[in-house]
Amino acid sequence: MERWNTGIVVFDDVEVLDFAGPFEVFSRTRLVGGVASRRSDEHAPFRVFTVGVREGTVSAIGGLKVTPDFSLVHAPPIDLLVVPGGFGTRALLNDVATIDFIRQRAPAAKIVASVCTGALLLAKTGLLRGKRATTHWAALDELAKVDPEVRVERDVRWVDEGAIITSGGVASGIDMAFYLVEKRHGREVADETAHYIEYRRAPSP
Amino acid sequence: MERWNTGIVVFDDVEVLDFAGPFEVFSRTRLVGGVASRRSDEHAPFRVFTVGVREGTVSAIGGLKVTPDFSLVHAPPIDLLVVPGGFGTRALLNDVATIDFIRQRAPAAKIVASVCTGALLLAKTGLLRGKRATTHWAALDELAKVDPEVRVERDVRWVDEGAIITSGGVASGIDMAFYLVEKRHGREVADETAHYIEYRRAPSP
Repeated sequence: MERWNTGIVVFDDVEVLDFAGPFEVFSRTRLVGGVASRRSDEHAPFRVFTVGVREGTVSAIGGLKVTPDFSLVHAPPIDLLVVPGGFGTRALLNDVATIDFIRQRAPAAKIVASVCTGALLLAKTGLLRGKRATTHWAALDELAKVDPEVRVERDVRWVDEGAIITSGGVASGIDMAFYLVEKRHGREVADETAHYIEYRRAPSP
Repeated sequence: MERWNTGIVVFDDVEVLDFAGPFEVFSRTRLVGGVASRRSDEHAPFRVFTVGVREGTVSAIGGLKVTPDFSLVHAPPIDLLVVPGGFGTRALLNDVATIDFIRQRAPAAKIVASVCTGALLLAKTGLLRGKRATTHWAALDELAKVDPEVRVERDVRWVDEGAIITSGGVASGIDMAFYLVEKRHGREVADETAHYIEYRRAPSP
């Protein structure tokens, strides 16, 4: 089994559930079901870590303090790049290091996935040009402003464009994560993991 | 408005969504709806912080590193005490400082709420004796072993015993948190917050 390096970007004023939801789903997925398999990483198809856009501990919305595993510069190769949202994305739209990191890492990643207003950052890199995409319901117009050539989709929990997937606000990212688990490892693995964490999955759009 | 000090206990091998779910819900609740009200704490009825069972940064399941706001000794008064679960609870069953902290803080708290196997810790303090309670589906028998006088409930997302509320596994804690928001501030505030974070609430048991 090829274990996917799953890098989740974190920053000041990132929305907690935006990064914690996908972190939970990917880090608890096991190809062998049950409780015992969750006690080790032997059957874990994702190796999940956080990547901070600056050195040191970041303060998420509400004040949750998270110490990233890696900086932008030292992050290992990433197969699945997750870009969460939150008010902090607005400052990052003008942060060259962050935008360059996403732009430079995207071609090597198998999938780039955004949660909530993380889509604004993807749009800023140009990755969403000509593609369908979504974001938090309150940021749909903002997404269109960052790149008018994004085909903004409303009232969906996620939009799958193959190598790029964008989800709606906050908790939508949990559903998107399960969708990606299902896409790669099948319905049974995704549903069993949802059962393990007692999450009621949203139906596919 | 009286703002409730909401202390969420964190420890090594705490399940990420167990603490991050309620953290998200309580910290994003606003008595005035919309996006703008979320940019400040003016209309926030909960002041949310983390309490570490030991000094320093804790490593949640999957390796997420969280730096608590307070230690057990220095935590401020707590109105709503949230005890999450995870494999780390097993070691804490024998940790006198943690069990004493819950036991000593419970009488002053308006509500003590557990998520997942956090219920094992509540049971250990004796707080659940003679009461109905639930936990993660894989730990129901274990809960009955910690205190045989707990009336263990199966197949429910949460059990409300007034000053004590226990929820099922992991994501059930998000539903329990919304239930507590609704109980204190009404359906409209809870549903509007769920809409803000795009969470599909589970129906009440």
